[in-house]
Amino acid sequence: MKLYGYFRSSAAYRVRIALNLKGIAAEQVPVSLIKGEQQQATYTALNPQGLVPALATEQGLLTQSLAIIEYLESQHPTPALLPGDAWQQAQIRAFALALACDIHPLNNLRVLKYLTGDLALEDTQKNQWYAHWIQTGFAALESQLTQTAGAFCFGDSPTLADVCLVPQVYNAKRFNVDLSAFPKVQAIAEHCNTLPAFIDASPEQQPDAPK
Amino acid sequence: MKLYGYFRSSAAYRVRIALNLKGIAAEQVPVSLIKGEQQQATYTALNPQGLVPALATEQGLLTQSLAIIEYLESQHPTPALLPGDAWQQAQIRAFALALACDIHPLNNLRVLKYLTGDLALEDTQKNQWYAHWIQTGFAALESQLTQTAGAFCFGDSPTLADVCLVPQVYNAKRFNVDLSAFPKVQAIAEHCNTLPAFIDASPEQQPDAPK
Repeated sequence: MKLYGYFRSSAAYRVRIALNLKGIAAEQVPVSLIKGEQQQATYTALNPQGLVPALATEQGLLTQSLAIIEYLESQHPTPALLPGDAWQQAQIRAFALALACDIHPLNNLRVLKYLTGDLALEDTQKNQWYAHWIQTGFAALESQLTQTAGAFCFGDSPTLADVCLVPQVYNAKRFNVDLSAFPKVQAIAEHCNTLPAFIDASPEQQPDAPK
Repeated sequence: MKLYGYFRSSAAYRVRIALNLKGIAAEQVPVSLIKGEQQQATYTALNPQGLVPALATEQGLLTQSLAIIEYLESQHPTPALLPGDAWQQAQIRAFALALACDIHPLNNLRVLKYLTGDLALEDTQKNQWYAHWIQTGFAALESQLTQTAGAFCFGDSPTLADVCLVPQVYNAKRFNVDLSAFPKVQAIAEHCNTLPAFIDASPEQQPDAPK
């Protein structure tokens, strides 16, 4: 399999973590979001959305990080990223979606570029926007973690929730967002980042990361 | 079961369609997003995210429209909203996520309010922003539909893809976005809107819609 991604894409980072946790090999193909390679015809012919990640498999191309991870889960069920019964799975999916739908889409590169480019906002306004959605979203997650967390978001093994949380925390730190109000969020991310599956998926470890 | 929602919330609209398609009854509890009821303590005590929809079940509360629908699918598998094998399911999930992650989060009420409120953008800039994400997102979906569509997004029965598409088309029309470049998207939404499950879920049919 080939994973089309970008070292700093949070969505590609999620898929890298999931592949590593499950011990699945995939060749990485860098698509530079900074150079706009995701909008070039060679890539959009493959993925009309012009976004990363995309996973090329023997059956064809899969897009959307959460759809890719659900597919990997179905083909390689162990270790489970959606453990437990349907109710528990719904709670884990909801946590992941709170990150993937309510925080990340507002703060990714194409959106920030549109704010400062097409809408001519200042960098200070962009940073205010970025921090607002992180702090709004993390406040709700911090509250939910009081009921579900162990060493990870749900108990003592990593799930889809952690797979989505760690890239968002990485991104928030890169934008210098104050995370002091979210000790559980931070502690879980720090714990994840001691594990090889998360370390090896981190942006700095990717082939397209600047030296 | 009780569904906390708002007549114009696209995410609540998705869950209403899914409930109707599966023939599951749920009492509707309106939460007025315009009046800010979703941020009031009585609601955030129930759902710390302060968002709709939320589904109160005997086991407790479920949040996030796609997590709710996946749960309903597991408990009431027929008619299937994720039919087919794991590969087909991944394609349907990816289409739904392209709407739920890459279009809707940028264009919902709280985000538009933040643009014109905290960031002091003009209404014309807000409308430009709205149309941009619709047109970018729908262009990719229109292209994908050439390969998958029948009367619905995937073949000839409704799936999670249609459940997410119809509310987004409704919303785009409310904002007067030009959809002429997306004939397949429009034809599928129009077809869906001839079916009782979609008609009964539409904003105008809800108890909290203005008379």
